[in-house]
Amino acid sequence: MTAPLIIIGSGFAAYQLVKNLRRKKSGRPIMLFTANSGDEYNKPDLSHVFTRQQNADDLISHTGAEFAQQYQVELFANTRVEAIDVEAKAITANGVCYPYSALVLATGATTFVPRLEGDASQEIITLNSLDEYRCSQQRIALAKRVLIMGGGLIGTELAMDLAASGKQVQILEPGTQLMASILPDFVSTSLEKQLRQEQVSVECRSYAVAMKYLDGTIQVTSNKGLTYQVDGVISAAGLRPNLTLASQAGLQVNQGIVVDKQLKTSADSVYAIGDCAEIDGKVMAYLQPIILSANTLASTLMSESSTLTMPAMMIKVKTPNYPIQIGGAHDVDSQWKVELSPQGIVAKAYDQQQRLTGFVVTKDNINQAFPLLREVQTA
Amino acid sequence: MTAPLIIIGSGFAAYQLVKNLRRKKSGRPIMLFTANSGDEYNKPDLSHVFTRQQNADDLISHTGAEFAQQYQVELFANTRVEAIDVEAKAITANGVCYPYSALVLATGATTFVPRLEGDASQEIITLNSLDEYRCSQQRIALAKRVLIMGGGLIGTELAMDLAASGKQVQILEPGTQLMASILPDFVSTSLEKQLRQEQVSVECRSYAVAMKYLDGTIQVTSNKGLTYQVDGVISAAGLRPNLTLASQAGLQVNQGIVVDKQLKTSADSVYAIGDCAEIDGKVMAYLQPIILSANTLASTLMSESSTLTMPAMMIKVKTPNYPIQIGGAHDVDSQWKVELSPQGIVAKAYDQQQRLTGFVVTKDNINQAFPLLREVQTA
Repeated sequence: MTAPLIIIGSGFAAYQLVKNLRRKKSGRPIMLFTANSGDEYNKPDLSHVFTRQQNADDLISHTGAEFAQQYQVELFANTRVEAIDVEAKAITANGVCYPYSALVLATGATTFVPRLEGDASQEIITLNSLDEYRCSQQRIALAKRVLIMGGGLIGTELAMDLAASGKQVQILEPGTQLMASILPDFVSTSLEKQLRQEQVSVECRSYAVAMKYLDGTIQVTSNKGLTYQVDGVISAAGLRPNLTLASQAGLQVNQGIVVDKQLKTSADSVYAIGDCAEIDGKVMAYLQPIILSANTLASTLMSESSTLTMPAMMIKVKTPNYPIQIGGAHDVDSQWKVELSPQGIVAKAYDQQQRLTGFVVTKDNINQAFPLLREVQTA
Repeated sequence: MTAPLIIIGSGFAAYQLVKNLRRKKSGRPIMLFTANSGDEYNKPDLSHVFTRQQNADDLISHTGAEFAQQYQVELFANTRVEAIDVEAKAITANGVCYPYSALVLATGATTFVPRLEGDASQEIITLNSLDEYRCSQQRIALAKRVLIMGGGLIGTELAMDLAASGKQVQILEPGTQLMASILPDFVSTSLEKQLRQEQVSVECRSYAVAMKYLDGTIQVTSNKGLTYQVDGVISAAGLRPNLTLASQAGLQVNQGIVVDKQLKTSADSVYAIGDCAEIDGKVMAYLQPIILSANTLASTLMSESSTLTMPAMMIKVKTPNYPIQIGGAHDVDSQWKVELSPQGIVAKAYDQQQRLTGFVVTKDNINQAFPLLREVQTA
């Protein structure tokens, strides 16, 4: 009997892969190992869970058991994989050895939690998974004042969601602007203005250095020496791919687990996908690249020839009161043509040859995102 | 014998008026009263005096006596006018009464100096005149770290000049951006970035609340509770028109001395010009409106019919490493079409009817200012 395909992880990437395989009529036996329950949920929903007053269980679309049955997967829930032996082509979990014909690492990423001084430094909340939300939902529900470490995509979405649910929010962003990695500064400026209108305070060039208990609350001290008295502190200080298993197995890792355009790692029959994978030097923790990767990897696993091609990317920022869509690419050398009005922004990025490479649209202009994406694709 | 024209003040507006009158061949006797020496200097030069390592005397183009002789003016230097009697048409200085046939108030404006807590609160430097610079030049020359209160036009120009002369500069700006009254936020963002590259720290939503001596330096505490240890503190927190004489004389004053488009105040034969005057509800402490006002007022005083018309305004921001020119007008409802690149910004403001109303150009694009100004004028 052929050994099964083994998948480690039960996040969006893992489940998307399973669905693609079954949709392509692959009958290959699949074992899926996950450290959590294996319940399926729509992760982007975590970005508006406070406004919608949803608790963790509300987000579950299928339990792990339901998913396993529907997609004919042998699910090992609440089971931590201990080791991978790429020579023997087997993994170990709970001391038992499971041989694989192919192995897919979908181990995801973990929110970076800075180490701080002070007796309350263990109180930092992370919200990168349903389980993390489940652990903290009550604490956040009771909090009136919340401090968010990091003004990237996730920190900003969280801030708007928390503010819309009635909380006072303080963002500390170490860089000079919100969402510096994906937004040009002039869009960040508009976004920041909108957040301030919603009673979100934004302090740039600022990060927490200490947290201590004070009168039943938490006092956070920043690098600038400012103090913030809050009821909860959330880290949104960036995602770090989970690389431990891969490195211990001797796979090539860099920022993420290094894979080629068939999602192959440096070891035979071992693949990686999702927030743990580094493709072309980049870890892309966004929906669209994962959907495309899952499609490519399903083909690869079915011995169909398939190579991942990334079309112009589109990112939707889930900030309902100031919606933003970002398409294609831009860099510091981009030339921008921008229209700004009280109705929002349309910003187009061009390269030195005057080719449209990317865009950002906001507010009333987000309906221009798809036409612009097509323009980028054909430019 | 007819009473002379009396001018109070010896700043740019006063001297521009005198020059216009003489250029128009007016032989009218002129008495000019000034609380300072009456020396003529080019006030915009104060914006790069530190980089050029000039002291106050270097800026003088003519002494008061030279100016008086050249333009046939009876100069009362270092003479403070005590009162104006608009009924009797006379002023009083040093207890002596001087009748006038016409009176021009060119009393200028004074930098607002906030009242702060702390024993060092008297140490605030202002730099709105040659005399103020003379008083402080040595102190500033010796200072390594300078804090500037206010990130408007003057504060920003000063910051860049001080930084270019090797000092560490901290701007505290109470608003949300630099130069909020004349620049759209996306240009401020670029300017702020440039300033940071030159080691100018900018803290927005921030203002000083206390100043105390500490180890031979000055410690400034901000509203945020941050402290800054500096060697000098300069206020650039806005100009307040000098209204005392005018109000005591019963002239109509508002933000400035209220004048019509002939520069007439509410009293017969009394005029106001320059930074002390309010035209159409606005005090315009910029070169161009003063030049135009001086021209109009000279005509009015020579009984020629003349009405001040303000063409599209142009402001040059004297920040040599990030030159900016602002033309025409814009407001919060403006629709902007903007091109941004590493070479700078071209930003055009349109009204609801798609008419070009104003623009901002920066860096390599400032050569587009005059063509754009013509476009605004004909739009």
